[in-house]
Amino acid sequence: MNYFSHKKLKEFCIDTLVHEGIAEPIAEDVASCLIETSLRGVDSHGIRLLPHYIRVVRSGRINKKPNIKFNQNSKTNGVLDADNTFGHAAASIAVKEAIKMSEEFGSGFVVVKNSTHNSANAYYGLQAARKDMIGISATHSTSMMVSTRGKKPFFGTNALTFAFPCKDEEPICLDMATTQLAWNKVLRAKAKGEILDAPWAIDGHGEVTDNPELAQGLVPAGLHKGYGLAMVVEVLCALLAGGPYGPHLTPMFEKLSEKRHISHFVGAINISNFIDINIFKESLNNMISELRNSDSIDPNLPVLVAGDPEKISEKIRTKEGIPLDEEVFSDFNSTITDHSLMQQFKSCFI
Amino acid sequence: MNYFSHKKLKEFCIDTLVHEGIAEPIAEDVASCLIETSLRGVDSHGIRLLPHYIRVVRSGRINKKPNIKFNQNSKTNGVLDADNTFGHAAASIAVKEAIKMSEEFGSGFVVVKNSTHNSANAYYGLQAARKDMIGISATHSTSMMVSTRGKKPFFGTNALTFAFPCKDEEPICLDMATTQLAWNKVLRAKAKGEILDAPWAIDGHGEVTDNPELAQGLVPAGLHKGYGLAMVVEVLCALLAGGPYGPHLTPMFEKLSEKRHISHFVGAINISNFIDINIFKESLNNMISELRNSDSIDPNLPVLVAGDPEKISEKIRTKEGIPLDEEVFSDFNSTITDHSLMQQFKSCFI
Repeated sequence: MNYFSHKKLKEFCIDTLVHEGIAEPIAEDVASCLIETSLRGVDSHGIRLLPHYIRVVRSGRINKKPNIKFNQNSKTNGVLDADNTFGHAAASIAVKEAIKMSEEFGSGFVVVKNSTHNSANAYYGLQAARKDMIGISATHSTSMMVSTRGKKPFFGTNALTFAFPCKDEEPICLDMATTQLAWNKVLRAKAKGEILDAPWAIDGHGEVTDNPELAQGLVPAGLHKGYGLAMVVEVLCALLAGGPYGPHLTPMFEKLSEKRHISHFVGAINISNFIDINIFKESLNNMISELRNSDSIDPNLPVLVAGDPEKISEKIRTKEGIPLDEEVFSDFNSTITDHSLMQQFKSCFI
Repeated sequence: MNYFSHKKLKEFCIDTLVHEGIAEPIAEDVASCLIETSLRGVDSHGIRLLPHYIRVVRSGRINKKPNIKFNQNSKTNGVLDADNTFGHAAASIAVKEAIKMSEEFGSGFVVVKNSTHNSANAYYGLQAARKDMIGISATHSTSMMVSTRGKKPFFGTNALTFAFPCKDEEPICLDMATTQLAWNKVLRAKAKGEILDAPWAIDGHGEVTDNPELAQGLVPAGLHKGYGLAMVVEVLCALLAGGPYGPHLTPMFEKLSEKRHISHFVGAINISNFIDINIFKESLNNMISELRNSDSIDPNLPVLVAGDPEKISEKIRTKEGIPLDEEVFSDFNSTITDHSLMQQFKSCFI
């Protein structure tokens, strides 16, 4: 395992995307999102995705010269047409518009259409929470969740985030996929020849299984409840955007030259119109302190609140660097053919 | 089991509350909510609660002469002080204000403070969806969910609703408690001497159990995910309202003379500012048709979408009546001492 300086890695990520013909402001949004996500320990959605992103630029899925348009259709609602740019840039612009509306009118919601993968959904909700708003973000994704009672996947692992500003620390952030397990964990178990911790995957007959070899889909988190939440995310994203939904969405890692027309939903609600923002932050601080100090079953495993594991990771990795394993390293190596860029990549080692 | 006419039962509910000194418009809101909830098959939150509500009027928890105040603090945010009236009335007024803001400015959110139990959370989100809005409602409740890794309950079964208007049928409505199981199911299993379907209750040591005799709390739906969602509901309700949170909230069935200062959150977002409302409704109709027609494991158990069981119940009960068992009947009998009211109750039999 090699460890990389997050600052240098971010510069490298920007330079690599610019080298592929992506405009610098868009490359910056992608890099900011990927590095923050890697620092927060969410490796599946972090910098390891860069080689994939390079491939979808080269294959034409990503539009290098997008005409990004924002239509604000009321004081607090708007639609952003991403024109097939990187979802990170589109959703970042969208959340800025939502914050602006929320500052002026109390709330703001933007639907992003004709977008692409936008990495960790938390990144967008967090931006609003850092501006003292309730941050909300949602994105649908590759069909993967087997509907309750059903045999086959319909919705994706559809992600939903709520983030709230807190006194003396980064926002409290619930960022959840609506499946109980991430598909990555199935793939990892398969690669290692292990069985899953619990029967949270679905085989070809719609039955639960802990055998990753048989897995063809995922169980919703909380059974029918997660299935319902995935539908909520699908409606907020695909249906409000008028885009493809569920199994009609092109899978992320298939047909790389096809546009996906993926949709996102972001929102901001102004807390200070309900309660003094300092009182709110202090109450939240008090509540999470009570939770963290409450009796745990195992004294070595304290009660956490949403986002705690990511905060712990961020602290460590900011200091010690972002780890990338051999597999990811070789993916970079085989994708980035420019010699000076690979030199730059290697200079990011700590 | 006796079956009651929902129309007559509603009149009876209003008359009973008015007899206890409740103003008629408030009694109407309570009755509308309870009857709709019973028709939808959610018996735990339906008309069976009326005797409890009568007790909390008599004990002084419910303020018979409330000074309900709404402060709109921005174009799209407001706080409603319920002054300890029935939560059903307070949340109904709040959602009307949210819809009004949403019609004019695109969104509207109202926090309700100093409230009381408001029965089924779905009732409020549905009102917004029937006006072609995205309806959102949330309420916190009696501390009951054992935090992930923790030993004791902190949050309640905190409920979250999203509702969307649909072509040719009532809105699609996800109404979920954030625990996997309802406490009522634990009580029912206990009364019948049965074990629970799965280990979704928590004993006094924080360990999961399927023995209702040992149950002292409930497992979050989707484990840490439901625990996170319960926190989101708690923040949207108690923290935005500046009210008591988690274990600081007086339990529903204890200290009946104490005010609870419970909080709710309701919202409406105007769909037509994102997409033509008819296109939206048609897409939703298409999507749920695909889901309902998708292959199910057991051909006798088709794939459903959120709210389908409630719609099926509503259709049957509107025709055949609302069933009330002996236990509920005797609770009515012992609480309602007025002879003519009990005569009226009996005349609701079908």
